[in-house]
Amino acid sequence: MHTIEELKSRFDAALELTEFRKKPGELYEPIQYALQGGGKRVRPVCLLASCEMFGGQAFDAINQALAVEIFHNFTLLHDDIMDEAPLRRGRETVHIKYNSSVGILAGDAMMILAYQYLKKNAEDKAFELFSYFNKTAIEVCEGQQLDMNFEDPQSEVSLDQYLDMIAKKTAVLLGEALRLGAMMADATDTDCQLVYEFGKNFGIAFQLQDDLLDLYGDPKKFGKQNGGDILAGKKTFLYLKALEVAQPTDADKLKELYYDQTLPAEEKIDRVRKLFDKLKIKDLTTAEMNRYYLKSGMALHSISAEDDRKKVLKEYAESLMVREI
Amino acid sequence: MHTIEELKSRFDAALELTEFRKKPGELYEPIQYALQGGGKRVRPVCLLASCEMFGGQAFDAINQALAVEIFHNFTLLHDDIMDEAPLRRGRETVHIKYNSSVGILAGDAMMILAYQYLKKNAEDKAFELFSYFNKTAIEVCEGQQLDMNFEDPQSEVSLDQYLDMIAKKTAVLLGEALRLGAMMADATDTDCQLVYEFGKNFGIAFQLQDDLLDLYGDPKKFGKQNGGDILAGKKTFLYLKALEVAQPTDADKLKELYYDQTLPAEEKIDRVRKLFDKLKIKDLTTAEMNRYYLKSGMALHSISAEDDRKKVLKEYAESLMVREI
Repeated sequence: MHTIEELKSRFDAALELTEFRKKPGELYEPIQYALQGGGKRVRPVCLLASCEMFGGQAFDAINQALAVEIFHNFTLLHDDIMDEAPLRRGRETVHIKYNSSVGILAGDAMMILAYQYLKKNAEDKAFELFSYFNKTAIEVCEGQQLDMNFEDPQSEVSLDQYLDMIAKKTAVLLGEALRLGAMMADATDTDCQLVYEFGKNFGIAFQLQDDLLDLYGDPKKFGKQNGGDILAGKKTFLYLKALEVAQPTDADKLKELYYDQTLPAEEKIDRVRKLFDKLKIKDLTTAEMNRYYLKSGMALHSISAEDDRKKVLKEYAESLMVREI
Repeated sequence: MHTIEELKSRFDAALELTEFRKKPGELYEPIQYALQGGGKRVRPVCLLASCEMFGGQAFDAINQALAVEIFHNFTLLHDDIMDEAPLRRGRETVHIKYNSSVGILAGDAMMILAYQYLKKNAEDKAFELFSYFNKTAIEVCEGQQLDMNFEDPQSEVSLDQYLDMIAKKTAVLLGEALRLGAMMADATDTDCQLVYEFGKNFGIAFQLQDDLLDLYGDPKKFGKQNGGDILAGKKTFLYLKALEVAQPTDADKLKELYYDQTLPAEEKIDRVRKLFDKLKIKDLTTAEMNRYYLKSGMALHSISAEDDRKKVLKEYAESLMVREI
């Protein structure tokens, strides 16, 4: 078994060796650019670690790890066009560096490349790999659509709908990566399902953690100013929970405040935070986050592999969790 | 065996029954809309006919037929965004009726749905189906990129490059549809390859026919004014062949004329046509088209099925060919 750092450097080496420098260069160069953006490579690394947890060789699942990372970057590329985002990890996004048409087409080609890698070295498992991957892939599209729907200030979003959206948009792909790794190691159906649940619930908790950190995280530690979501009018778990627990007058006040474009930034954040404090939103959200971290941990616990084989993923998960917010 | 009309109505019924009315409606409604645009359904109908030619049941390949048609419509949807096309078969394009973000995401989801249908009812063949389909799918992206590259008036395009572009952008998917139908009928590898060649070469010939009809087709018969490609400055086979066979002075004259934005439409078309006539472009293009129709027919001829089983596809192909231009 390998450490997360070892798996990451193996994955990076494989990605580096992967030949995307084909013709026409106008199509493949932006793909290469999109994949070179760096990042933690959480999904492929988890896929490889999951494969090893179930006794497989990381090397045997490297193509599936590439598939998941290429697919993930395809979704980022198209999302950035839809969101008109100029930057991604400090670099120009593809549609800015090239243009939107190039971005759309490069993304399309990446999705097809993802499917190509998914089946490599896995002839006997192709049908099953595709079945699970497809289901998750379509959920990721649904999650993106829900996220766009929620951007409309007029849209009414329940907490369940929000949890469904973050599950689909970000959490299921983490679960899927872990499941694909397990499948490549010929894990049992039960274990495949459990490792998926481990990843999916972890992903949901991690997104709630993100919502919390945006307002309550230490800017020195996380390198981000607090309150970005409030200024962007983003319907986060904090905001939706507040609407749920508030008395009608407070709820109305919050809605008005949240979409007030005239207030100075500092004042707006401050006033929303005061309302959140009154409603104990930080505690309520932390409780919800911990509920998902717990579900995630329980799924990992139930997996039939021996405890020392679970260590790599367990410690990696813990390293991504923020205990004190 | 069934006639083309019977296969088309079976396919239309299957498409009609297919449930795309899932949630979120904001994602699935545009998909439904895109697939309801009508059209001849050439690819899925050829897929079913190919399956029957090799002794299979059309019904057993219906999911693969849906896959190909959904994939084809996904490419149209994204191409229309890139080309900023307002209309498709007389209806508003998806990005106009909704918006570009919806169009991008609906297209992405359609590609995933295509992969879902491709493997339905074909567990034992999934790996092979995916292998061939993927190769073709990535070629379609490459073809679209080449087509965009060629739009640059400064780009130098050879005839070989043009033929490569039209092969990838439109012809290979027809070949692939026929091959998938053959695979579903458990045809031999040789026959699968031959039926692919039949479709690919037919597709190239058909595109050359399209280039010819644009300038020389009878407007009353084809319902289109002549010379649209010239006015759009499109590098067609006619134009590229003319550049190839012309003396340097004529070639320079043609280039200048082709990108002259000041000439009245009628005069521009007339002067280009006169130059083409001098260079015998109509005959040269017709000869090239017939060369591909011949290759296509020879591939069909070499297929091991009995002649009466080839009749449906043979007659369908002939019905799409224009003998007198």
